[in-house]
This record gives sequence, C-alpha cells and structure tokens, in this order.
Amino acid sequence: METNGEFKEPWKLLSEIAELGDHARLREEAERMGSRECARAISRLNAEEQSQVLQALTPEAVADLMEEISEEQARALIFRLPPGVAARVFDAMRSNTAADLLGGLDFAEIEGLLGRMAPEAAANARILVSYKTDVAGGLMVREFLAYPVTFTTQQVIDDMRLNARKYSEYSIQYSFVTQPDGTLTGVLPLRDLLLAPGDKPITEIMIQRPLSVLDEAPLEELEKFFEEHAYLGVPVVDAKERLIGVVRRTDVQEALGKRANRDYLRSQGIVGGEELRSMPVLTRSARRLSWLSVNIGLNVLAASVIAFYQDTLESVIALAVFLPIISDMSGCSGNQAVAVSMRELALGLVKPIDFLHVWFKEASVGIINGLALGVLLGSVAWLWKGNPYLGLVAGGALALNTLLAVCIGGLLPLLVKRLKFDPALASGPILTTITDMCGFFFVLSFATVALGRLT
Amino acid sequence: METNGEFKEPWKLLSEIAELGDHARLREEAERMGSRECARAISRLNAEEQSQVLQALTPEAVADLMEEISEEQARALIFRLPPGVAARVFDAMRSNTAADLLGGLDFAEIEGLLGRMAPEAAANARILVSYKTDVAGGLMVREFLAYPVTFTTQQVIDDMRLNARKYSEYSIQYSFVTQPDGTLTGVLPLRDLLLAPGDKPITEIMIQRPLSVLDEAPLEELEKFFEEHAYLGVPVVDAKERLIGVVRRTDVQEALGKRANRDYLRSQGIVGGEELRSMPVLTRSARRLSWLSVNIGLNVLAASVIAFYQDTLESVIALAVFLPIISDMSGCSGNQAVAVSMRELALGLVKPIDFLHVWFKEASVGIINGLALGVLLGSVAWLWKGNPYLGLVAGGALALNTLLAVCIGGLLPLLVKRLKFDPALASGPILTTITDMCGFFFVLSFATVALGRLT
Repeated sequence: METNGEFKEPWKLLSEIAELGDHARLREEAERMGSRECARAISRLNAEEQSQVLQALTPEAVADLMEEISEEQARALIFRLPPGVAARVFDAMRSNTAADLLGGLDFAEIEGLLGRMAPEAAANARILVSYKTDVAGGLMVREFLAYPVTFTTQQVIDDMRLNARKYSEYSIQYSFVTQPDGTLTGVLPLRDLLLAPGDKPITEIMIQRPLSVLDEAPLEELEKFFEEHAYLGVPVVDAKERLIGVVRRTDVQEALGKRANRDYLRSQGIVGGEELRSMPVLTRSARRLSWLSVNIGLNVLAASVIAFYQDTLESVIALAVFLPIISDMSGCSGNQAVAVSMRELALGLVKPIDFLHVWFKEASVGIINGLALGVLLGSVAWLWKGNPYLGLVAGGALALNTLLAVCIGGLLPLLVKRLKFDPALASGPILTTITDMCGFFFVLSFATVALGRLT
Repeated sequence: METNGEFKEPWKLLSEIAELGDHARLREEAERMGSRECARAISRLNAEEQSQVLQALTPEAVADLMEEISEEQARALIFRLPPGVAARVFDAMRSNTAADLLGGLDFAEIEGLLGRMAPEAAANARILVSYKTDVAGGLMVREFLAYPVTFTTQQVIDDMRLNARKYSEYSIQYSFVTQPDGTLTGVLPLRDLLLAPGDKPITEIMIQRPLSVLDEAPLEELEKFFEEHAYLGVPVVDAKERLIGVVRRTDVQEALGKRANRDYLRSQGIVGGEELRSMPVLTRSARRLSWLSVNIGLNVLAASVIAFYQDTLESVIALAVFLPIISDMSGCSGNQAVAVSMRELALGLVKPIDFLHVWFKEASVGIINGLALGVLLGSVAWLWKGNPYLGLVAGGALALNTLLAVCIGGLLPLLVKRLKFDPALASGPILTTITDMCGFFFVLSFATVALGRLT
C-alpha cells in the first residue's frame, strides 16, 4: 500500500479511511489484507474507528476476524455492532466459536442474541453454551454428518452430492451412522465409502461400536484420546449415547495451547486472564497489581529475617552485598527445578506421588551445583575483602541454599498439584519466599557464629 | 495389575519380568499397557532392563514407543539395540520421525544405519535428513499419493482399492497429480473423487495450481500457512517445483509445541536442550550450571553497586532489609511486561519496531503500579522505624524502579528479537541485572542525600 510514495502501516490506513466514512473502500482494504493482518490492524484502532470498520464488512468477514483474535477482544468488538448485525455475525461463526463468545455474557445478553439469530445456529449455540468450555460438550462443533442405519452407500453419496455446498464447511472425513433414537452405532470413513465397490447397506462397511467420548469428558481426557488415536475428530455422545457433536483434534489442540499460554503468563505473574495492550490501562494495572501485592507481602516477610540480624550486619557491612545475590541465585536454581518438574508432570513422566524419586534426583544435582556456585561466590568474597572466612560464610550459605532450593523447587509443583492448586501460579512465589528466608538466615547466622573472624 | 493383592507400578512390574528374562511376558505386559504408559515405565528402568524390554518387543511396537518419548531419550534407547534390530525399528517408523532421530547422529552412524535399512525407508530418510529439522523439507513425510496427469478417476480409485493396505498408513485425504518430470500440477481431494459422477480424466476434477511450500520454508512460514488455510497438509516442492513430500498440520503443531516448550524451559534457565530426570546427573548439572554461572556473574555485577555505598549502609543498617525487596519486586514487575511482550510478539500483535507504542503502554501501567507499590512499601518502612523519611526513600526508590522495570521489560524482548537473539533466553537476566543495579542505586543514593534525616 503506497500513498505519496511511502509505506503506510495497515492500521493507520484503516484509521484514515474510517475517518472519511468510506465503507466500500474499508471493505476493499480489509479484504486485501486478509483476516489476520486486518485483525492486527483493528486492534490498534480506537473504539469509534473499530465500529466503522466492522460495520463496513460482511457478517462472514467479521466472523472470520473473530477466529483470529482473543476471546476478550472478540467480545469487546462484536458488541460495538447493533444487536441485529451482531446476530448475523454469530450466524456465520462456527458453532463452538459462537458458544465461546456467548459464554462470557450474562443470561439476558445471551437470550437477546439467541432470539435474533437464525433458528438452527441459535439451537446449536444453545446446546454448546450449556456446557463448560473445557469439556467435550463445550469444545465440540455441531456441524457433522449423520445418516440413518437404513441408508445405502449410494444414498449417502447422493446426499453428499446434493448438499455439496452446505457441507463444504463441514469436516466430512467421517460421517456417522445413527439409530432412529439418535444413538451412535457406526462411523463411515470417507475413504471406505470411496473404496467400497457397488451399492450396499452402509451397515456393511461402517465401523461398528465406534470410539466416542462423553459430553462431560474433560480436556485432559480428550488430550489423551488424541494422543492415543490418530483421528481428526471424535464423536461426542450424551449420557443416553445419542450423538450430539464432534470434537475435532484442532479444537483440542487450540484449547491446550490456550491453557499452556495461560500457564506461562501465570508463571510470570499475569494472573486472572490474558493481558493485551489494547485493554484499558486500569484493567491491566489492576490485574498485575493483584499479583504484585501478594508478592510484596511475601517479600517483606522474607526480608524480615534480615531485621533480626541488624547487629551482625552492622559489624560486617559487606554481608549486605551478598544478601541479594544469594536470594536471586537460589531463586534461579529453584526455578530450574520447578520448570523440569512442570515439564515432567505435563509429559506424565512423574506423578504427584513420586516425591522420593524427584527428591533423590534433585538432591544429586543440588549437591554438585551448590558446591560449584558456593566455591565461585566464596572465592569472589575472599578476594574482595581478603578474608577467607567471609568467603566461607557467603559460599557456604549459597551452597547449602542451592541444595535446598533445587529440592524444594523439584517437589513444590508435585505438592501444589496434589493439593489441587495450580502449580504454574503458586510454585514460583512460594519457592522464592522460602529460599529467601533460608538464604538470609544461613548467611547471617553463619556470620554471627564467625563474627570474631570477620571483623 | 495385581500381584499378591496389591497394585504394582508398571515400571516395577517390567523391571521384575526383565530380571527373569521372560521376553514373551514382557511383550504381553507392554501391549497391555499401551505405548504411552509403557514409554513412561521404560524411562524409569536402568539401561540393562531397558535393553531387555526393547528386545522383547516387535520393531513396530518399538517404533510406536519412539513417538511417545523425547528425541534424546529415543536416541539413547534405540542404540541399546543391536544395529540390525535398530534398522528394523527405523524401517517401521514414519519417515520424519526416523529423520529426526538420525539427525542427532554423526555421519558414520547415519550411514551405518541407512545401509542396514530397507531401501525405500532408507531413501526417504536420506532425503529428509539432508534438511534442517525446522524447515518444510525436514518436517515433511514422504508417505503421500501422487498420480500421473494421464490417469482417470476410475484408475485412481482402482489403485487405491488395490493398495488399500499399504496406503492405510498414509494420510490420503488429498492425493496429488504430477507431470512426468515430477512437477506438481494438481490436487485431488478425496471428497471430490467421491462426489464426481462417472469416470473422467483427473485433470477435470483436480484443483489446478495448488498451493505448495518450498522445501526450505521455515517453521514460521508453515505456521502462517496453516493459520490462513484450513488444510490438513500442504505439498512440499523443491526449487524445480517437483513434489517431494507433504507437511502435515499435526507435524507443524508438534514442532511449534516443542519450540514453545523449549522457550518456557529457557526462560526458566534450562538452556542447551531439554532436561529429563532420567539423564545422567552430570549432564543435568552441567546444563543448569552453564546458565547459573553467567547469572552469578551478572548478580555480582549488580550487587557491586551496593559496595559503593557501604558508608551509607553502615549509618542506616535498616536499608539492607529493603535491598532484596526492591530487587525482587522490580524483577517481578519487569517479568510481567516481558511475558506480555513475548505473547504479543508470538501473536503478531506487536512487531520488533513498535518501540514507541509499547513504551507508552507500559509507562502508563508503570506509573500506576509504581505509585501503588511505592506507597505500600513506604508505609511499611515508615511504620517499622517510625521515620517518614525512611518510607520516602524505600517507597520512592521502588516506585521509580517499577516504572523503569516495566518499560525495560516491555521493550527488551522487541530489542533482543531485533538483534536476532532469542528473547525467551536473554530477556530475563538482562532485565534483572539492570533493574537490580538501578534499584540499589536509587535506594542508596536517595538515602545518602537524606542521610541527616535517617539517622
């Protein structure tokens, strides 16, 4: 895009056209960008400009945009539209995307929208929204093909040919076979339909008693299912074994990706939901502060250990230099062990009961690394003040605290998980509070004992 | 599994049977467990027991196991087997899994194995192993279907029926159409083959000029491709546009997952490759130490600021309590901003040139959170010693350093990425070194100025 011979950033371009109110040109530019680039550009516009752009686009194009952005952003954007237009966008969305967005609204808002939507789309969304988002019923799509047991292969192929356009949005690698009461009785892979010669009852070529998951199956179970089976999707049945949807591998992977990302953000102190810089500054501040204010309390607690040793510190002021080093290094060593445990928990290589195994493995690393780091820091201390006892105090404290930190770091995620808390969230701050307190205690109490040699 | 009425952990069970040398029973138990559980159990056995179990299983079963464990583990395990048996396992693996494992070996080892493998499997592996692992050529599978342009739909269906067993391991949702010189000219979706009535040349129903990626396309390009197109796979062509393989969506997602995981481990200080507790203790120590020894250097550097203010510290020993608090809190605030930037970079919401935008967004949060945390810590300091000036020094230093930390934290990943380093690896330690130095400087220099009021 060139204007006056210079490149213009997409969001600036959209912003300028929005100001002119030129809807035809907005639609044209948005199409040229593609939905991903367009989503990125829109996130940089102000509320007024965003409404302009969204109203210029077709409901289908807005629905495509919604797939590209985070749920919170999508929800904020779509409700800038008049309710009737928003309902058309929901009609055009895949059933599980629509349900995800509806899930964040209150009852009256949901009903208001569903009442305006096309009957079939509304009925589908109504079913999905009745489930939690992280179970099969909430992750499934309602767009699937099912044929009665009485059909023949030719009847299926005829129906597919007749409805080719409608089905083009479906994933028809499998179609399903159901009893009159809706019970799932078979699966008909597309390839078997193709490879079967002649016209015959589908019951002859279908796979009987197909694998399925219950609508209440949690994400972990679906993850395991797709790890064990190389399928693109799995049928979802209700308690009465009636087929109600299909969970696709891609939706499970997306949900797992979201969760992993939430875990990463949490481990770095972004708690209570995803943060994007397009959110209001007070929301962002408040979310970060909720975490920081807990942390500052823990920090004051840990540092209070230092207050008990003011006399020792006053005599050997050089110790003040080593306190932050020991605190930070033990935190690092401990966090390495936390990361390995989180990883091994995720891979299923350790279970929350494997305390002894993890403790033994970490203690061996802790002894080696503690000695190495202790000797390093001890030498620095000795050389700096020319006092070998200062080296012994600083190095010894670091060595001991490193051993402690890796053992606690390795075991904490197991313990936190066993107590049903979130290890990504809680492991870090608990770890550093304990290692800070112990580290300060070691260095200052060793110094108190060796006070005569240090001054 | 019950023995004497009590549950036995799978690895203990395998270990006991391995000791008896009962291969038939090992095979039976391994099959009962399924490859995932079995992989987990094997990782807990010693080298001798592992060889026993692997030799008891069929090559196909070992190949399935290799899909369940990390590459390093797989490589270590498979070379416990006699070379001839290892070659049979490689024959049974999917071509890209085989190539991944071969990739970690030296030239002589690779050739030794390839020479023993079945000719077709060896030829496939040889092609894949010539590419880097994170480009299309290294990620693709060689198992795909291609038909000459001269074929008719019936000829294709006949071939599929004839070779149904062989192709059952292929992903045949698409087959490809090639010119006599191997150039890719069309794609034949399975559904179109099914829906097309009668026998006709495949050129009539194929999709012409299909999308494809070059063999040297990096992972980022493949990620973008699958985000923009809802395909299960994309054909890979070489510089002469000859079809050489197919990259499947699942392989790209797996590679992205591996990278995200590597990023997480790196951000926590596990550098130079994945760590599993089944690795030798010295390897694990050395990997963790390589990171810690850089970090201790940075820590000593940061703490050296304190050494310059020993006189001030000696006069107001209470300051020593606040140094670790300010260091840790600024690190936390900064890491929150790092996490948000890493996330926005990954989503493509910011680019490495968006400095001003990020700086402005972070500064607003930094002012609010800096004030909030500063007032909090200042009040604690005031109440503790009953000296409002101590509160001003500690609170003011934390407020200012929080603002600095979130700005640096937000910008660092952009800068590091622009300089072509790995932001997951470098952002954390650079951030904390700077914020430690500045934090120590603020609190101690403020105290030096206000020294008369503090003592």
